[in-house]
Amino acid sequence: MRTVAEHASALAALVGPTPVVATPLNEALGLVLGRDLIAPVDLPPFDNSAMDGYVGRAADLPADGTFPLTLPVSHDIPAGRSDGRPLAAGTLARIMTGAPLPPGGEVIVPVERTDGGVDRVRIDGAPAPGVHVRRRGEDLTAGTVALAAGTVMGPTQIGLAAALGLATVDVRRPLRVTVLSTGSELMPPGSALEPGQIYESNSPMLAAALRAVGAQVRIEHFVADDVPALLAALEQAATGADLLLTSGGVSAGAYEVVKDALTGPGGADGAPAVDFVKVAMQPGMPQGAGRFAGVPLVTLPGNPVSSYVSFEVFLRPLVRAAMGHPDVMRPVLRVPLADAISSPAGKRQFRRGHLDTEAGTVSAWGGPGSHLLSWLAGADSMIVVDEDATSLQPGDEVEVWLLD
Amino acid sequence: MRTVAEHASALAALVGPTPVVATPLNEALGLVLGRDLIAPVDLPPFDNSAMDGYVGRAADLPADGTFPLTLPVSHDIPAGRSDGRPLAAGTLARIMTGAPLPPGGEVIVPVERTDGGVDRVRIDGAPAPGVHVRRRGEDLTAGTVALAAGTVMGPTQIGLAAALGLATVDVRRPLRVTVLSTGSELMPPGSALEPGQIYESNSPMLAAALRAVGAQVRIEHFVADDVPALLAALEQAATGADLLLTSGGVSAGAYEVVKDALTGPGGADGAPAVDFVKVAMQPGMPQGAGRFAGVPLVTLPGNPVSSYVSFEVFLRPLVRAAMGHPDVMRPVLRVPLADAISSPAGKRQFRRGHLDTEAGTVSAWGGPGSHLLSWLAGADSMIVVDEDATSLQPGDEVEVWLLD
Repeated sequence: MRTVAEHASALAALVGPTPVVATPLNEALGLVLGRDLIAPVDLPPFDNSAMDGYVGRAADLPADGTFPLTLPVSHDIPAGRSDGRPLAAGTLARIMTGAPLPPGGEVIVPVERTDGGVDRVRIDGAPAPGVHVRRRGEDLTAGTVALAAGTVMGPTQIGLAAALGLATVDVRRPLRVTVLSTGSELMPPGSALEPGQIYESNSPMLAAALRAVGAQVRIEHFVADDVPALLAALEQAATGADLLLTSGGVSAGAYEVVKDALTGPGGADGAPAVDFVKVAMQPGMPQGAGRFAGVPLVTLPGNPVSSYVSFEVFLRPLVRAAMGHPDVMRPVLRVPLADAISSPAGKRQFRRGHLDTEAGTVSAWGGPGSHLLSWLAGADSMIVVDEDATSLQPGDEVEVWLLD
Repeated sequence: MRTVAEHASALAALVGPTPVVATPLNEALGLVLGRDLIAPVDLPPFDNSAMDGYVGRAADLPADGTFPLTLPVSHDIPAGRSDGRPLAAGTLARIMTGAPLPPGGEVIVPVERTDGGVDRVRIDGAPAPGVHVRRRGEDLTAGTVALAAGTVMGPTQIGLAAALGLATVDVRRPLRVTVLSTGSELMPPGSALEPGQIYESNSPMLAAALRAVGAQVRIEHFVADDVPALLAALEQAATGADLLLTSGGVSAGAYEVVKDALTGPGGADGAPAVDFVKVAMQPGMPQGAGRFAGVPLVTLPGNPVSSYVSFEVFLRPLVRAAMGHPDVMRPVLRVPLADAISSPAGKRQFRRGHLDTEAGTVSAWGGPGSHLLSWLAGADSMIVVDEDATSLQPGDEVEVWLLD
């Protein structure tokens, strides 16, 4: 039996990083810079005023001069004025926040220290030259690294890139995943269920989980337990995909369509195209990984809780790594148990958890059954019990992954 | 001057909750249930096997019986078989995980405790009736609350809704926001800057910040400091919007286009349509709120850091509240300062912060200047300094908001 770490390594070898693509800023949210972003311009791009007020020459407005003092206003410099008209000696210009300092202008007097005059203005006092001035390049200098490779593009990083004049950033593009559920018992929403039938839930659940980590997801209509139908659906699903993800049909039963369809030699060298393996974990023991039509393929078990736990343990880190995220894991805590739990020997158990933030403890949320989707939906965390632990008591510390 | 809390209350009065709309599951990720979701069916919908194996009658397979014991296999029950064929006395049926128990079948023997026979099977031991059986309704009973109003629809909640046969869920729809920047100094990406001009960065930054909390955002092309142009752009922007968001043009300067355009009576009763106010905070003092063409309007200051801080303080909670999120605030910690910082008396200061998780301290990241976008993009948190604090020393605890 494979360990969880061994299977994770096998998957990591299968799916490489997505290409770095110049991406419009409005599509870059949450994506990761594939290379350093070098500032093409200084920020600010020019010396400008940090205040609404007046700008004067240092010779006309000595900080230790005699105030009040009235001077003519030669012109206005609103933000955006770009004619660079110099400031004549013996005059002031009215200047707005963000507007460029005129040639010769060095002293910024905030409007609050004046009478606000338009043709002539009374100045009640002046700061030293350079005060209230935002110097060109003081936030960022052209040619330096504005954002390092590996940075996640959040709102402020997008704002910075825009301020640097960039329409696109070089980020790893989203991983393209096609999701496909298998099972003759699966029915679409809205249909009346016959005994033995259930509504298909893995595709929408896995698609949402993949989208939540930034993947681009296509859902292929689920297929019955029929090998030719599955192979046809996989052909369709592989088109344009970086990763195929199936659920169901990989267990030990007599009708395991994914196993049946994909067992056997697939490569030119006769090696199996897909390895179906047992992983020492509960739930989620039956797993598979390989390629179909050259596209990486991961086969998850079909029980909804097994499927979701497999996503958290294997797929979420895989997708985040492929998309360049420096940190691929959920936040992990060590938390004492509120209640005893048991766990099978030799398997890593993943239980749905519920945190009591007041008491600082965690409880198993529902039983270990891999059909308990309602309990899964009520969990806020996952409790990880090591392979060698079989019986844990209240107060014993366990590893807890915080879900969101 | 308004307090931060007073201005937040004014905004809250302006923007109500979005309507509850039946929304396809694949568009529901991150949205909030507007009413309790009542389970229309039991989960599981029928008694089924938790194992691949064989199912027999209790009379034929007493747990204390004599084993091994060989019996004929009457038929197979794969998952999805829905004909309800009863189990004849003295026979077993092969049954797969998730397949319905046949009438008469009560004992599940896992395949591991058999020889796996197809026509006849040797049974090496049997558990009690009901073991390895998933009972109808044991996860969730029809008619009970599956997900309560206020639940955020994550992947597992979407999975649960799908398992209940639902194609849509009743969630509060995204808030529709139009973002509009103003300023004659603003230039589009890729253009050559004249002295005095800067690249427009607030719209992409605010749009990304709004999208990150689930809003639907439209960016209206930014407008120069020209009142008729702004009014025309606002008419356009208001169409189909729940909220208009401008940045720039609300300060104390001589060219404040938003103020100039929207000051004065706007309502039928002659009251101003938009209140331009000073809020006791740094940065972000000049703020405005009101209505334009009946649509709620929030006017943010134009400096990028002021604009972003205003988003975090006012807009993010507003959008999350409108979309029904039970918890609208960032995660808040109290953390000791690594370095001294000063703060203006009477104003709540919001400084960009950087956490040292090893030392358990926070530092101000860059100066207080509201043009320091590069430092903003490097911050991981926001430090909140109370109105009455003017000088904080290393070790003093401050409120810290965790950004993501």
